[in-house]
Amino acid sequence: MSRKYRVGILGATGTVGQRFVQLLENHPQFEVTALAASDRSAGKRYSQACAWKLAGAMPEYVKEIVVEPIEPPLDCDFVFSSLPSNVARETEEAFARAGFPVISNSSVYRMDEDVPLLIPEINHEHLGLIETQRTTRGFGRGFIVTNPNCAVASFAPPLAALDRKFGVESVFVTTLQAISGAGYPGVSSFDITDNVLPYIAGEEPKVEIEAQKILGNLVEGAIEKADFIVSAQCFRVDVLDGHTASVRVKLRQTSTLEEVFEAFRTFPSLNLHSSPEHFMEVCDEPSRPQPRLDRDNGKGMTVTVGRLFPDNIFDYRFVSLSHNTVRGAAGSAILNAELLIDKGYFK
Amino acid sequence: MSRKYRVGILGATGTVGQRFVQLLENHPQFEVTALAASDRSAGKRYSQACAWKLAGAMPEYVKEIVVEPIEPPLDCDFVFSSLPSNVARETEEAFARAGFPVISNSSVYRMDEDVPLLIPEINHEHLGLIETQRTTRGFGRGFIVTNPNCAVASFAPPLAALDRKFGVESVFVTTLQAISGAGYPGVSSFDITDNVLPYIAGEEPKVEIEAQKILGNLVEGAIEKADFIVSAQCFRVDVLDGHTASVRVKLRQTSTLEEVFEAFRTFPSLNLHSSPEHFMEVCDEPSRPQPRLDRDNGKGMTVTVGRLFPDNIFDYRFVSLSHNTVRGAAGSAILNAELLIDKGYFK
Amino acid sequence: MSRKYRVGILGATGTVGQRFVQLLENHPQFEVTALAASDRSAGKRYSQACAWKLAGAMPEYVKEIVVEPIEPPLDCDFVFSSLPSNVARETEEAFARAGFPVISNSSVYRMDEDVPLLIPEINHEHLGLIETQRTTRGFGRGFIVTNPNCAVASFAPPLAALDRKFGVESVFVTTLQAISGAGYPGVSSFDITDNVLPYIAGEEPKVEIEAQKILGNLVEGAIEKADFIVSAQCFRVDVLDGHTASVRVKLRQTSTLEEVFEAFRTFPSLNLHSSPEHFMEVCDEPSRPQPRLDRDNGKGMTVTVGRLFPDNIFDYRFVSLSHNTVRGAAGSAILNAELLIDKGYFK
Amino acid sequence: MSRKYRVGILGATGTVGQRFVQLLENHPQFEVTALAASDRSAGKRYSQACAWKLAGAMPEYVKEIVVEPIEPPLDCDFVFSSLPSNVARETEEAFARAGFPVISNSSVYRMDEDVPLLIPEINHEHLGLIETQRTTRGFGRGFIVTNPNCAVASFAPPLAALDRKFGVESVFVTTLQAISGAGYPGVSSFDITDNVLPYIAGEEPKVEIEAQKILGNLVEGAIEKADFIVSAQCFRVDVLDGHTASVRVKLRQTSTLEEVFEAFRTFPSLNLHSSPEHFMEVCDEPSRPQPRLDRDNGKGMTVTVGRLFPDNIFDYRFVSLSHNTVRGAAGSAILNAELLIDKGYFK
Repeated sequence: MSRKYRVGILGATGTVGQRFVQLLENHPQFEVTALAASDRSAGKRYSQACAWKLAGAMPEYVKEIVVEPIEPPLDCDFVFSSLPSNVARETEEAFARAGFPVISNSSVYRMDEDVPLLIPEINHEHLGLIETQRTTRGFGRGFIVTNPNCAVASFAPPLAALDRKFGVESVFVTTLQAISGAGYPGVSSFDITDNVLPYIAGEEPKVEIEAQKILGNLVEGAIEKADFIVSAQCFRVDVLDGHTASVRVKLRQTSTLEEVFEAFRTFPSLNLHSSPEHFMEVCDEPSRPQPRLDRDNGKGMTVTVGRLFPDNIFDYRFVSLSHNTVRGAAGSAILNAELLIDKGYFK
Repeated sequence: MSRKYRVGILGATGTVGQRFVQLLENHPQFEVTALAASDRSAGKRYSQACAWKLAGAMPEYVKEIVVEPIEPPLDCDFVFSSLPSNVARETEEAFARAGFPVISNSSVYRMDEDVPLLIPEINHEHLGLIETQRTTRGFGRGFIVTNPNCAVASFAPPLAALDRKFGVESVFVTTLQAISGAGYPGVSSFDITDNVLPYIAGEEPKVEIEAQKILGNLVEGAIEKADFIVSAQCFRVDVLDGHTASVRVKLRQTSTLEEVFEAFRTFPSLNLHSSPEHFMEVCDEPSRPQPRLDRDNGKGMTVTVGRLFPDNIFDYRFVSLSHNTVRGAAGSAILNAELLIDKGYFK
Repeated sequence: MSRKYRVGILGATGTVGQRFVQLLENHPQFEVTALAASDRSAGKRYSQACAWKLAGAMPEYVKEIVVEPIEPPLDCDFVFSSLPSNVARETEEAFARAGFPVISNSSVYRMDEDVPLLIPEINHEHLGLIETQRTTRGFGRGFIVTNPNCAVASFAPPLAALDRKFGVESVFVTTLQAISGAGYPGVSSFDITDNVLPYIAGEEPKVEIEAQKILGNLVEGAIEKADFIVSAQCFRVDVLDGHTASVRVKLRQTSTLEEVFEAFRTFPSLNLHSSPEHFMEVCDEPSRPQPRLDRDNGKGMTVTVGRLFPDNIFDYRFVSLSHNTVRGAAGSAILNAELLIDKGYFK
Repeated sequence: MSRKYRVGILGATGTVGQRFVQLLENHPQFEVTALAASDRSAGKRYSQACAWKLAGAMPEYVKEIVVEPIEPPLDCDFVFSSLPSNVARETEEAFARAGFPVISNSSVYRMDEDVPLLIPEINHEHLGLIETQRTTRGFGRGFIVTNPNCAVASFAPPLAALDRKFGVESVFVTTLQAISGAGYPGVSSFDITDNVLPYIAGEEPKVEIEAQKILGNLVEGAIEKADFIVSAQCFRVDVLDGHTASVRVKLRQTSTLEEVFEAFRTFPSLNLHSSPEHFMEVCDEPSRPQPRLDRDNGKGMTVTVGRLFPDNIFDYRFVSLSHNTVRGAAGSAILNAELLIDKGYFK
């Protein structure tokens, strides 16, 4: 067995940081060697610095690691970042400039022209942007890659399946998003108990622009965005994990319901450690997908689609669901790292 | 002051039946004189037959009334009905045939061609169908009028405002519906805690067809339906009361955002006892409407609209909310009764 | 009708502050003339400074009032205070010293020997401490009175009824407390959804010591505490409003179940504006009291008791419930102000 | 490896039945060969008969098994039963009489003098009652063993630890019970959202009597019950899984806090397949145990204890938690089966 890559986590005490810690326990390719968090935490053992919020105990392996300030260098081969937007731009660039590959879950670099916005099953060839990025920004060994917004991750996969086969023209999506998407403490219980919030700051614009980049083509070192339009309305509901998307799509090409089913079912998964057996699963039961029952499909990495029907205005409607802190955040970033290894970017 | 009308309630022990009982306490025009419920309840005092589920105590006035079987005649001038669909068709017709005006919250007659489907502020002239109905069905004094599905009631009012001013062509609606809409015991807590249900049996078709009738025109004793199309996806969320609708509309005529605001704000209310001061309220705050905070606006009879913006595919998007067991059920039926008095149908 | 007293609210933008604003709308004796809040809010109109979190709209009367810093003098006859503990001690004393009666919902002065801890129905004679307080502290017109912790308010009333008739020796109480008790944003939704929290910082000691003072006797200008012992375990549950207490009591004197019922039912209410018709209500139904159904009894000022049975270790067990931000906070403070007027302390 | 025992499940489609199906997947000693459920389900494949409600998909192994009526014989070596009380007495006896060991989660036989009420870590020697039972009831190979009520399972383990070391005299317990304890559909969401229910039918008496039998001694073929008294108040809260118990105990013998900690920590687990590594875990953090974070400790078989402090009336107070459908139901029954194999009762 080959050596393990040494991993640093930026923002290690937050909810997504905790997911990284949880998902990297016993990972065959990665070993966590550095944890960085805000000044308040730096200098403490992780077990003291972090109020563990996930079900199950804090993994043993991480308890004694002393948390460091969020600045390069760290004792690791590359870093995962789940920094808040206000510090991510400067800090992630500093790490890349210092020679660290940065696999970021933050939103700030996602739409930069030279930064890959990856869902590996859909667009791994976008890694070609790293070359561009290194040239443009004068990075050496370092670079930045990103994964999409957690709400986008819940419906971009079925969209990709449709776009490849039939061409997508327009998409209406209404999301019902879990509270873990807001971090911790995040949403006040007084706001969400017996309630729905019709507004998530900054979310609708992100949901409307990311999918076109993800489904774009890499042409001569740049992304040509896909030319469909997404209209998004985003709601917060009282669900712990799992974003649900209510979707209607208008296609460019006629298709039968059976062909659409097939397009979802046969979209290939990858052969990476964190790849689920099925990238997408399609439910037959009328009352699925449900976040509590389906968010953990494929250990949180499978996107579950259901209620697929012809629509009376557009072509099709369906409901799509994924785990927002696994497929929509930490799990997705880890998959990106596995992809980078597989494609030789960590040599 | 004129005499009070004597009222019977069919299905008096259910959740909507309880709302009737609550809303009719101290009503200036109505006096509850008959309560009818299933055989299991018949013969008992209401206080014994009914497990009261609404906040606040069961009103005193109703406790000693002995529940009767659901069959005509009852000792009253007209009846409110909140019967389940499987018994409503036969029973409501029996009451109408026996000379009782039936003001129904059930779904079975809503789409019958000779039955008014009323939102009084929008289409009170549809009462003209009663004449047709009496002729067609050979009713004497009796007749049947209905109010819309509770989800339709949450977005038909802003739709009406838009249709009158600019013409509506297409509507995408995704609903986030409260658990009280399923009656009692209704939704199992094991299904909805930490969860969203993407399916409500029979709901999407109802939501897709009722609005066109409501916004139709009465022409020579029949309704010409409005010719827009509604596409609906319906979800159940863990909210006690208050249905939220995520809406996009395509209009036939160009309009400015300010004109749309105006259309909502200036749509007239009526001068009936249960009419709210404002039929629709429009929120400025970005995070409103919210079911827990806004469902009781106008004592549950106001429809609250917010997050009105231009849409990037259709013309406008907005979020609309109303109280599903008041504006969407019992309150709406009571308003229908007040309208019928006002228009002389109870003479 | 006599003139209205002019009221200031310290901490006017918090959850309890908002309850004050809501409950004082149209109050026959009080008129809100000053709102004070943290520096961040000072200088803004209340409608801009305050994110209104209660059901229903922010009352019109308060919207244009400009929020002031929390320091004396304010343009009012007395102040209600719902300041956080860390600033309450100094600030409330400053107001009292400046001549303002301070009616505080804060915890800091509750156990001070010369400060009344009031539930007016139980111990209005403790107002005699004001004399002592003015002497001790050198206050002029000003003074400080307090109301109990919100959890104590949920079971002290039935305890008082038992203590007066039969003498209480020991009390085990386990509380199930609502999230509004933690203020806003308070409890993270990620902590309480599908969960129970077995710990509320600082709560158990407060619950264990306040009742003895409330039920004590004023003797020569000082309180002789009641000599029973309270053991408390406090839990947070996912309920918006309404604290529930599971109680067992050991009495000093034998009593029949019927006598205990009588003691609860006949404990007199007062004749003040905010007094409920019944200070305590006793439920017969086996599944009551429930916070959602019973918290608003007596407009939130009635304490509802149920499940009263003989206990197999102590003498009796019962469940007791009250609205934690009305009877347990703002409503209680307003009742204290009405009592002070009635007893002539505002002359 | 030895052969697998062939298992039947009575009540296989209910919530506890589903837990049996889930926990028995890939069990090294058991193979499910028969599923029995009500007449409505009999004759259908399990995948059609059962609305799967647990997170994750229905296990493949069980989908094609045809559900049979609940009557002996079934094609298996022994049966697990999770039948409702009204049918359990007759049916379980019929299976026992027909030669099947019956490992029951039902309440009906728990307190019968000749039926073991088992928590294997505490009282496996009670298996001696099987001999008595076979004699008394004229059973051949068959017999009935039971596991305790799910609420009792949450606090009997720490009680056992205390009773063995120091002797328990009196126990006050207040339970905060999960909705899954009520089965499916069980608790209506309209009853429990934003609410607490202070009543669970029949629960308090069960909680008050079972622990004394569990902690009793087998003397000459009969159980001498432990002679402490339990006082129980039982509440339902909006939690999916995990019963929390608020406990105070009076001991017969003086003990230090450290000794009590030790008694909990050192109580031995067993060496059976479903035994957790730690029968009890003791939390240090002030805000634990919490149902969502701790119910899955030891795969749902560990009882988690926290908030252990001296009490001011009794000797100690603590909070105890276990997974009500694993340690409190299906997992416990499976552990009983493993114990029976280990002790040679299935030969």
